[in-house]
Amino acid sequence: MAKSKTAKESLAITTHHVLPYDTNNLGNLFGGRLLEWMDIIASITAHRHCKRVVVTASVNSVAFKNAILDGSIVTLESKVSRSFTSSMEVFIDVWVEDPVTGERKKSNEAIYTFVAVDQNGSPLPVPELVPETDEEKDRYEGALRRRQLSLILAGKMKPEEATELKALFLK
Amino acid sequence: MAKSKTAKESLAITTHHVLPYDTNNLGNLFGGRLLEWMDIIASITAHRHCKRVVVTASVNSVAFKNAILDGSIVTLESKVSRSFTSSMEVFIDVWVEDPVTGERKKSNEAIYTFVAVDQNGSPLPVPELVPETDEEKDRYEGALRRRQLSLILAGKMKPEEATELKALFLK
Amino acid sequence: MAKSKTAKESLAITTHHVLPYDTNNLGNLFGGRLLEWMDIIASITAHRHCKRVVVTASVNSVAFKNAILDGSIVTLESKVSRSFTSSMEVFIDVWVEDPVTGERKKSNEAIYTFVAVDQNGSPLPVPELVPETDEEKDRYEGALRRRQLSLILAGKMKPEEATELKALFLK
Amino acid sequence: MAKSKTAKESLAITTHHVLPYDTNNLGNLFGGRLLEWMDIIASITAHRHCKRVVVTASVNSVAFKNAILDGSIVTLESKVSRSFTSSMEVFIDVWVEDPVTGERKKSNEAIYTFVAVDQNGSPLPVPELVPETDEEKDRYEGALRRRQLSLILAGKMKPEEATELKALFLK
Amino acid sequence: MAKSKTAKESLAITTHHVLPYDTNNLGNLFGGRLLEWMDIIASITAHRHCKRVVVTASVNSVAFKNAILDGSIVTLESKVSRSFTSSMEVFIDVWVEDPVTGERKKSNEAIYTFVAVDQNGSPLPVPELVPETDEEKDRYEGALRRRQLSLILAGKMKPEEATELKALFLK
Amino acid sequence: MAKSKTAKESLAITTHHVLPYDTNNLGNLFGGRLLEWMDIIASITAHRHCKRVVVTASVNSVAFKNAILDGSIVTLESKVSRSFTSSMEVFIDVWVEDPVTGERKKSNEAIYTFVAVDQNGSPLPVPELVPETDEEKDRYEGALRRRQLSLILAGKMKPEEATELKALFLK
Repeated sequence: MAKSKTAKESLAITTHHVLPYDTNNLGNLFGGRLLEWMDIIASITAHRHCKRVVVTASVNSVAFKNAILDGSIVTLESKVSRSFTSSMEVFIDVWVEDPVTGERKKSNEAIYTFVAVDQNGSPLPVPELVPETDEEKDRYEGALRRRQLSLILAGKMKPEEATELKALFLK
Repeated sequence: MAKSKTAKESLAITTHHVLPYDTNNLGNLFGGRLLEWMDIIASITAHRHCKRVVVTASVNSVAFKNAILDGSIVTLESKVSRSFTSSMEVFIDVWVEDPVTGERKKSNEAIYTFVAVDQNGSPLPVPELVPETDEEKDRYEGALRRRQLSLILAGKMKPEEATELKALFLK
Repeated sequence: MAKSKTAKESLAITTHHVLPYDTNNLGNLFGGRLLEWMDIIASITAHRHCKRVVVTASVNSVAFKNAILDGSIVTLESKVSRSFTSSMEVFIDVWVEDPVTGERKKSNEAIYTFVAVDQNGSPLPVPELVPETDEEKDRYEGALRRRQLSLILAGKMKPEEATELKALFLK
Repeated sequence: MAKSKTAKESLAITTHHVLPYDTNNLGNLFGGRLLEWMDIIASITAHRHCKRVVVTASVNSVAFKNAILDGSIVTLESKVSRSFTSSMEVFIDVWVEDPVTGERKKSNEAIYTFVAVDQNGSPLPVPELVPETDEEKDRYEGALRRRQLSLILAGKMKPEEATELKALFLK
Repeated sequence: MAKSKTAKESLAITTHHVLPYDTNNLGNLFGGRLLEWMDIIASITAHRHCKRVVVTASVNSVAFKNAILDGSIVTLESKVSRSFTSSMEVFIDVWVEDPVTGERKKSNEAIYTFVAVDQNGSPLPVPELVPETDEEKDRYEGALRRRQLSLILAGKMKPEEATELKALFLK
Repeated sequence: MAKSKTAKESLAITTHHVLPYDTNNLGNLFGGRLLEWMDIIASITAHRHCKRVVVTASVNSVAFKNAILDGSIVTLESKVSRSFTSSMEVFIDVWVEDPVTGERKKSNEAIYTFVAVDQNGSPLPVPELVPETDEEKDRYEGALRRRQLSLILAGKMKPEEATELKALFLK
């Protein structure tokens, strides 16, 4: 399990067609369904990175910018953005395609964190993540700040120890 | 729509029994299903606060601390923690009860944000939230820091303008 | 297991938002879905009363007075109304809230019966139910008549032995 | 719409295979799912009798005698047992077949009532039901007593006016 | 297991009401749902023929001639058309009924193949099928040609050995 | 709409995690669910080829070679293999990945046909398909034989007119 991995190796793709089954009372994709789709594809990405059973540890951030209409074709792409001892941060990008031109538009972005576990649910070490593209490097760097933030919010780190985050506010 | 409201007025409660339908391959409640349940109950809370159609704007934070076993009785309680011009931050507390003693244990906590919209999806103003209990006041205050954070992360606010957040790191 | 319990101790609440997923071809909440929701919340109530695995024994009465529209917020509240040796009668009250005023209107009422069972499905004794409010007392008393009725309908009791019921027709 | 109809003309049959999707935590068919299946097939029967849109008016009685195991093949057969001005009482018989011998065993019996409605939800008259077999005649006669009972329970009839029912207790 | 069986003995019937849950964005029954319904009823037919656990081996042909509207009452009838050593070809006929006249119209026809298996998934012999009606005899004969075709398509038979099929093109 | 298109332009990918929700009583992926997944992804492919509303016209062939276990990660890839006046033949390849090595194994192959339709359900012309790889060319050529076969089976073509097919048996 020593080997490090690239983000591309963990890429997972899924495409859904929004059916009435998936809609809310406005005729748009129901938020809860999209969260469910994200959880599934992101857990596949995390599994591909570490080849272990993974469980959702947290949803760090999901933004719903635009309503997604009934009948839309929605593609979710997820990749590991950074790994820590036994956890992996995963970015999910959501795209909706224009039914006439086929052009894809970014609709949503989400960040989930997963932990690799053994049979008893105890955490297992995971491979390091080596970012390659510019976007992957940005997300890799941001991951540390997000991790410090969530440790602070969980009361497991003092703000003054969060050197990365602190720098953000002091510059 | 001028009236301010208490958090209690927006309280929504839902109780689910985890069925095989809801489980993952470990026999635990599947993360995506819990996210869906949270989205539904939190949107009911947001609606009760503003009496308008509401749409999910973001999932700010969800932590999955403990696995929830197949057969568990799970209760979700949600309340508005703070409102801004047209958005409402909602806290969801998730409880699992012991099948023998009936004792409830806190299992998860989540924060979602909703926006009130009119027929065309344009944002509408919502009532102010007046916190009453100590927990409500804590969450009310934290909401401003979380909002500054998400504005920074979205590139809509400069870190140095986030006075509330900044104070956290400078004390 | 000797202790008696109040109805309040078994109270279970669940709130649903009617989505297109739940509707029939008239755009109203589909009857089968409401029956499913009732079964789940009532079984949680029965479980809370006896802290045992419970199985649905019968649906004694469900009235569908008004159609429940797509988009409605529906709250189900259930309480044990009376317990017999190993069975519990559960009342479910269904409320729909006005989307503008938030006022709740009683929409439906249902009565289910559950039995507590052990691992082999054999019945187990359950605590007595002590009614407190006027409504609880009414339902407690009615439970005996309903039980006699269902025993008669099942051919397990002769009409002339149903003293409670008989009195109803002779007064 | 003047014509009377036989019970046989309204017969509807459906066969399901119990999948993990349909089970409770004991590995048996979940009560709520069976209630949903019954509602659908009974509404088809009611529609076949009157050729109108029908809505569930009440569930009068459902008994769950035996647990139905995961993997079972379950057949539901429903027929109108009696019609009143605009309502129809429907009996549903549930059969489970032995996987080796194929022999069918009666598992459950249920009674639902439906009302025929027009576009505005107003009740419409339905054809008379003419029972033919002995079982159909028994159920036809019982329907009147059940109707009196539910009118009494709903406070719409005084016990002393329920002549059919009264006779039962006075003989 | 020596006994041969008639097609009638394996007849399975199921009736569904098309709900919004089952529709595509045109308001018609979604193709994937009908394929799922067909798979379930056809597997029940195959099971009834051999009284063994059966698994879907192939879908040989399904034609979707007409759109099936939301609200339709759809009946699927399936029968074994021919059995080979351990496989069974099953025909599924799909009927939609007119909501006013109740007249049934053939909507679809499908052919699935199932294999009987033991605990380890190894194939088991199945009873012979004895066709009785003209339609059953036609389908029985066609089954051999379809089997040769699928063996050719799978590269397990040379076209020149498919005597039945060859005759079709040489006459 | 004159432009021809490559197969690659219509490629659609979806990845699923097999949950208990999706399994049959053997703990494997239920055949009906896989057929549903195939229908959705193949219809997205057909849509991407023609940018029109498409409806499933037929399922020509699906082989289920190996059972897919609960917990598997399943990837479906679909591409148009050939287009005719207003119909498109789509191939779906199904892959299952080894949970430890990540190696993908071909599990299933399926062929569906879709038709492009206007608002009234009338067929619309679709772009030509230009195959590029060897596999695409093989499938493109086979498509004509399969089309002749299905026309013959539907009684819309005489065997002797099916020149492509005939050649197969005469060589």
